[in-house]
Amino acid sequence: MNHFADRLIEQALKLQSRVIVGLDPSVTSFPLALQTRLQAEPTEDCLEEILFEFNDAVIEAVIGVAVGFKPQMAFYEQYGLAGLKALQRTLIRLREKGMLIILDGKRNDIAHTATAYATAYLAAKHPVFNTPNPWQADALTINGYLGRDGVRPFQEVNPNAGLFVLAKTSNPSSGDLQDLALTLGGSVAEKMASLAEQWGEGSVGTHGYANVGIVVGATYPEAAARLRRMAPHALFLMPGVGAQGGSLDAVAAAAGSTGTGAYLASSRGVMYPFRPAEMAGPNWRSEVMARIRESAQALRF
Amino acid sequence: MNHFADRLIEQALKLQSRVIVGLDPSVTSFPLALQTRLQAEPTEDCLEEILFEFNDAVIEAVIGVAVGFKPQMAFYEQYGLAGLKALQRTLIRLREKGMLIILDGKRNDIAHTATAYATAYLAAKHPVFNTPNPWQADALTINGYLGRDGVRPFQEVNPNAGLFVLAKTSNPSSGDLQDLALTLGGSVAEKMASLAEQWGEGSVGTHGYANVGIVVGATYPEAAARLRRMAPHALFLMPGVGAQGGSLDAVAAAAGSTGTGAYLASSRGVMYPFRPAEMAGPNWRSEVMARIRESAQALRF
Repeated sequence: MNHFADRLIEQALKLQSRVIVGLDPSVTSFPLALQTRLQAEPTEDCLEEILFEFNDAVIEAVIGVAVGFKPQMAFYEQYGLAGLKALQRTLIRLREKGMLIILDGKRNDIAHTATAYATAYLAAKHPVFNTPNPWQADALTINGYLGRDGVRPFQEVNPNAGLFVLAKTSNPSSGDLQDLALTLGGSVAEKMASLAEQWGEGSVGTHGYANVGIVVGATYPEAAARLRRMAPHALFLMPGVGAQGGSLDAVAAAAGSTGTGAYLASSRGVMYPFRPAEMAGPNWRSEVMARIRESAQALRF
Repeated sequence: MNHFADRLIEQALKLQSRVIVGLDPSVTSFPLALQTRLQAEPTEDCLEEILFEFNDAVIEAVIGVAVGFKPQMAFYEQYGLAGLKALQRTLIRLREKGMLIILDGKRNDIAHTATAYATAYLAAKHPVFNTPNPWQADALTINGYLGRDGVRPFQEVNPNAGLFVLAKTSNPSSGDLQDLALTLGGSVAEKMASLAEQWGEGSVGTHGYANVGIVVGATYPEAAARLRRMAPHALFLMPGVGAQGGSLDAVAAAAGSTGTGAYLASSRGVMYPFRPAEMAGPNWRSEVMARIRESAQALRF
């Protein structure tokens, strides 16, 4: 695997897009055709199958627009083993299609344990069988609250992998902690951004960005501008456009002079541009794909 | 499920123990007897089986000493689906035995996604099938970096469940962010502790502790004393005794006047008091159990 930041940027330039498409399955939002199948056959296998089939439709729909895909692990974990099996199949499919994968797990722990998380999601090989690791992603979101020694193991397990450290999150109460001012100057979020900048030193690629990026809510454009100064070499992963009220302009403003430094992450807004009942018939897949492709195109800038 | 903090305290008083036993499987530390079986049959099924069998031996060994069990999710996730299946079986076994489960996942996300994590690990029922949720734990570790609206969904999904919010972690670089001073006074860790105290308001049980506790490294006894003042109603979950250098005294000091406010979490120190080669024979289980029981007893205070 080559340098993550370089690959992401090259893909963005090739596609003329900055959209990362979330893959957050939620059965109650699925086309009625799929929900009806599950009602008729309420089994773990059927649940796994419809989770995968819907993801597969989303993936197929946005190829050519999506710079990468961001499966959010919680939405698979909520369905137990059926969900986790569907996630594994989704990751395999994404790799078959040559897509970049940013796994959104916001994992964090002390070094010994962070190494286990890194082994899970960034290692090329299974730790026991030494076979290819089906769960390997190109990048992982992490929470940097534990400091450098909770981050380094991810870099050691795979120096080419990308990491996105939570800095200023998109949610309404992100300020409870992140906006507080430090006596040494700046906010907690700004400090996290400058720590991420430090952690990324030595990993800056040919396009000028490091393999350590940050997560910055598109809902807070002023904070984003300050964070850009704290972390000039960090790619920004920016959720919050759409359902949460953030704007495309906020992402564009954070993208830097080359326009390749910020990426819009959208999940619900892209995945579910329909009401379940509208998609009850046997042709749900092509109809859903057309709508999803349109909603992803609308996020291009 | 009844009030978590009350149940934990009642169990501690009954057993005269404050030890929470970690369940962090690491195949290379396992008895050689199990490693040899896996070498002879290198399959996902065999891996799942030995992960579960070793956990089962640990559980059986420390019943009567362990106030609860803390499986660390990373150590299962690193083994892919085999690991996750072993975790599911472990959780089922713990419930069969009536043991308290603190699932250590340090999950965190915005509200919509936090609800999915809460559904995964704290809900009584599967979200689709409405069957009992095999992954349901009694408590979950979480990261509070996102503030209140990233915490509330866990409380909403199950108000009786326990939450342990990372405040001051046990690792060497925990100070990178957590020790920084805020202009409003106190450190980031202290602020997190006081936020946890706020989040726990309204959930204080008959023993005087809330369902929102905090994680405090036993490696930082002075910080623990300050955090106790910020969060008088929080149960302290304290890792770091043993391999990381923390002491029993640090835990006892944080336990408050009733001695029920702090719990020592130990994983490696309890689970692996042997070298793999010592446990190569067919009687590995009883020999390992005797050693493990001894190592857990040594942590009683």
